[in-house]
Amino acid sequence: MTAAAVPALVERAREGDARSVGRLVSLVEDESPLLPELTRALVPHTGHARIVGLTGAPGVGKSTSTNALIGELRRRGDRVAVLAVDPSSPFSGGALLGDRIRMGDHVLDPGVFIRSMAARGHLGGLAWTTPQVLRVLDAVGFDVILLETVGVGQSEVEVAGQADSTVVLLAPGMGDGIQAAKAGILEIGDVYVVNKADREGADRVARDLRSMLGLAERREGAWQPPVLKTAASTGTGVADVVDALAEHAAWLRESGGLHARRVRRAREEIETLALTELRRRWGTVGESDRLAELAEAVVAGETDPYAAAETLL
Amino acid sequence: MTAAAVPALVERAREGDARSVGRLVSLVEDESPLLPELTRALVPHTGHARIVGLTGAPGVGKSTSTNALIGELRRRGDRVAVLAVDPSSPFSGGALLGDRIRMGDHVLDPGVFIRSMAARGHLGGLAWTTPQVLRVLDAVGFDVILLETVGVGQSEVEVAGQADSTVVLLAPGMGDGIQAAKAGILEIGDVYVVNKADREGADRVARDLRSMLGLAERREGAWQPPVLKTAASTGTGVADVVDALAEHAAWLRESGGLHARRVRRAREEIETLALTELRRRWGTVGESDRLAELAEAVVAGETDPYAAAETLL
Repeated sequence: MTAAAVPALVERAREGDARSVGRLVSLVEDESPLLPELTRALVPHTGHARIVGLTGAPGVGKSTSTNALIGELRRRGDRVAVLAVDPSSPFSGGALLGDRIRMGDHVLDPGVFIRSMAARGHLGGLAWTTPQVLRVLDAVGFDVILLETVGVGQSEVEVAGQADSTVVLLAPGMGDGIQAAKAGILEIGDVYVVNKADREGADRVARDLRSMLGLAERREGAWQPPVLKTAASTGTGVADVVDALAEHAAWLRESGGLHARRVRRAREEIETLALTELRRRWGTVGESDRLAELAEAVVAGETDPYAAAETLL
Repeated sequence: MTAAAVPALVERAREGDARSVGRLVSLVEDESPLLPELTRALVPHTGHARIVGLTGAPGVGKSTSTNALIGELRRRGDRVAVLAVDPSSPFSGGALLGDRIRMGDHVLDPGVFIRSMAARGHLGGLAWTTPQVLRVLDAVGFDVILLETVGVGQSEVEVAGQADSTVVLLAPGMGDGIQAAKAGILEIGDVYVVNKADREGADRVARDLRSMLGLAERREGAWQPPVLKTAASTGTGVADVVDALAEHAAWLRESGGLHARRVRRAREEIETLALTELRRRWGTVGESDRLAELAEAVVAGETDPYAAAETLL
């Protein structure tokens, strides 16, 4: 593929051709040299999609919830893309295949696009790939992008930082109260959902969560995250989640929070791209290797890491 | 504290003064401006300690195993430092306090030093802090440094990369076989330990693990990771683990693997220090802010992230 072919591929993707969308995403995943070209072609079409992060520990019913959310959003006329990211899987690219199959209700719907990504690639990992894939999905015309991550570790928090609104899923019977406090999910959720609400203990999880959220200090005019209950397998409560997300989106626009989040994300992306380019020049990505000599010198005791870093700069 | 006081503090730490060791570690954690000075003072004394990574999911008995390993290493005359790192905890600095208390058998032993770290700090996070703390512990004369991490996510794999030898702990009844394959632990362990060997299912976990490790392709002359069984709470099997670690250390020296690992770690550290310095200059760490204008321009659609990254460079 040549640089000249990029605008036409973007055009076909914007007309709704799923295969072209898939090819654009693959250009990002394959770290194509055409990405600067592609980015220029996409940028004028971006800024429309709402990016909704969806996170929660394994077993809370994330795939079922995604499936149910897609259904509700489609009923309201939204085109929906799902980007499922697994940062805990540095070695494998296929861990989420099962999820894609479970979200199969919508496989034949042309208004739905589903893609899984693992933390592969030579460049900056998911911090490098995720914003670029989100830009593709935004530019080709999806109204809502569901960004699904596994768990709530440090990498997941970084991925969640790419979303406009973040839904944190919990379920009864998983010791979630303590886990929640420990892993910092009280600081990342805009909407909390206790799934499997038909099971024993769901009310207690919701109550504990509300009281923990109530204890957190919030600035005046800040968003107060609601705690909702769903049974995603039957669809109960899912419309309320979509309503809460619409309210959060309106609040983000009115409060100036949306602009602030976008500026922060642009900063992070510029920085990631610049650092990746530098690492390429230094030789930790790609072929040259100016770092190797310095590292040998450090191990030999001829210099120290701080002095070597200064030499490199 | 002044730069002139650094060598004397290093000297006291090397004479075995635990408070001085603690102060040196704090200089790293507090991102002291004296770190280049300190690094120069430490480097001539490094290269002696064996760094042993210890990782495993919550519940496998990591603290009990650490405690038992300390005991066995002390019986053999080694001075032992423990650095317990929790990368999954970006928001809190105190998550590991409980572990320190559980390792309390050795709190009064001057040949043992125990320290916990969470992923706090403004600079490069654990990738920035961990190698510098390891250098302190090496230089002040510990023979073995146990680097304990929680779980096996991407951040944990990075921390494990700081070790010369990595022990992966498992336990029966945790669905570990599948988890192991998924999270890539088959690629990071030098010694596998099935703890709680007195419980039902331990033999099956060990057998499954051996067969999965047997399936992995290894180059000729490569290290074949042993699968051992322990009951850390009674000490059963712990001496075998220490023997296996000694064998791995000997193999590393003879095969040239030790030098290769040290060069790789030096590369990574130089790169991390250089990138952190650049981020400081760009304004994502510290006070100035050249990135802010570029990010606003990207959000306004006046430029794109690739072009902005080039401008920054």
